[in-house]
Amino acid sequence: MEPINILVTLDKNYIPPLRVMLKSLFLNNPKEVFHIYLIHDAIPCMQINSLKDYCAYYGSLLRPIAVGEEMFADAPALRYLTKAMYYRLLACNILPADISKALYLDPDTLVINPIRKLYDADLTGYLFGGCIHSSITGISGPVNKIRLNTYETDGYFNSGVLLMNLRAQRNEIREEDIFRYVSEHKLELILPDQDILNGLYGSRIMPLDDSLYNYDAHRYETYRMISSGEKDVDWVMRNTVILHFCGKNKPWIKPNRSRFGILHKHYAALADRVQTFFV
Amino acid sequence: MEPINILVTLDKNYIPPLRVMLKSLFLNNPKEVFHIYLIHDAIPCMQINSLKDYCAYYGSLLRPIAVGEEMFADAPALRYLTKAMYYRLLACNILPADISKALYLDPDTLVINPIRKLYDADLTGYLFGGCIHSSITGISGPVNKIRLNTYETDGYFNSGVLLMNLRAQRNEIREEDIFRYVSEHKLELILPDQDILNGLYGSRIMPLDDSLYNYDAHRYETYRMISSGEKDVDWVMRNTVILHFCGKNKPWIKPNRSRFGILHKHYAALADRVQTFFV
Repeated sequence: MEPINILVTLDKNYIPPLRVMLKSLFLNNPKEVFHIYLIHDAIPCMQINSLKDYCAYYGSLLRPIAVGEEMFADAPALRYLTKAMYYRLLACNILPADISKALYLDPDTLVINPIRKLYDADLTGYLFGGCIHSSITGISGPVNKIRLNTYETDGYFNSGVLLMNLRAQRNEIREEDIFRYVSEHKLELILPDQDILNGLYGSRIMPLDDSLYNYDAHRYETYRMISSGEKDVDWVMRNTVILHFCGKNKPWIKPNRSRFGILHKHYAALADRVQTFFV
Repeated sequence: MEPINILVTLDKNYIPPLRVMLKSLFLNNPKEVFHIYLIHDAIPCMQINSLKDYCAYYGSLLRPIAVGEEMFADAPALRYLTKAMYYRLLACNILPADISKALYLDPDTLVINPIRKLYDADLTGYLFGGCIHSSITGISGPVNKIRLNTYETDGYFNSGVLLMNLRAQRNEIREEDIFRYVSEHKLELILPDQDILNGLYGSRIMPLDDSLYNYDAHRYETYRMISSGEKDVDWVMRNTVILHFCGKNKPWIKPNRSRFGILHKHYAALADRVQTFFV
């Protein structure tokens, strides 16, 4: 089987949850080889090397790509936001030209089932594969957005799990389009990369089932209700591939309100045990 | 490191949870070699062989011991109870004479951290190592037993996790003592093997910390309360070695009320995935 390309873009504060996510990925996909592309700007060498050892221990390969100062020199300046917000959207230009597909994963995800079927999804004609988070009404749009008071989760593709058709992206995604969009929408951007993704490329994303590939770990009751009870905990454990601890309530910060938080904590303990092998 | 001897005694109905327990044991102890002694009377050969492959896949060894009709021929007959109730207490006579230590585990346990420290506990002077389940009052005895209405969990050693000093047991534990005790207490035996264990050998059991080695998965709030909040979910995930889904509410039967049920379901999914490798 060909290796699976995973893309992560993060700063050094997110290395601990990244290790947990990777542990879950490796453990639930023991027969796969992963090439983990890590786009970053300033993660210290020691931490990169430790991550390399960690991936190598599972027969996978970490390929860090440090983004230099010169990159995105023309990007519009945005208060509070760094250039790192562009890494995900412009990954097609940063990743090696000979890779044509990658799966972007947020570090606050957990992979609890085999990922091959998702990775092999046919993206012909699309730039991305992504998920809209299910809501109780199923209606998307601004009204609902306000009513639920959860801007992040309604009617928009969530940018936490993105299957990337890099070949098609290289033909269509242009830095200047993104920079122009940001300049024109500066004041409206709440979740910048997700807003840009939806604003510019929403119609070019192949919809994937969020209950399988980007399950919002805080909305168990919603999934259960809209599936008439079918998608209970047993169903999730056997079918859901990617749990996403999106939003502010992270499982590594107390108190955690997700019923899946305990799984994250177990994988965190497992990830830390691996770390001790390298001492 | 010497192999760790694990003892299980069960009938074929408990093979599915046994696989889950073993999966958790193997996964959280990747550097250990286990010799799994399975005392049974009538598990079909096909199922034994499938379990053998399953253990071999993890570099461990299944050693099934079928107990013949002739064994325990003198045991007193008890309504509803089979001779299998004696396997755990008389394991020292059934297991090979050259093994001196074993860890008995109920199939409704989950091993979520390394087990070596427990196995290496010094049992000199004792027949068993075992746990009394913590209660809110900390008082044991019949009054409390009635008040809490949970005979199983109060003031008695729970027989679900037992570290066995087989050498000492071979000198002290006698079939005839056990058979006599059963004859004399027939009508009082509620949880027969546990009652016999406590009645005959209660003073010969080295107490172990149940929050580490026999954590009652349905009593999270009790553990948290009596530790003044220290033993929260994070503590359990990083310290508890054995979770025990004791009592009637099993995680494989819906609905499950333990907050740890989700871990059991995840391991059940993992165990089933291994099974498919053998098809």
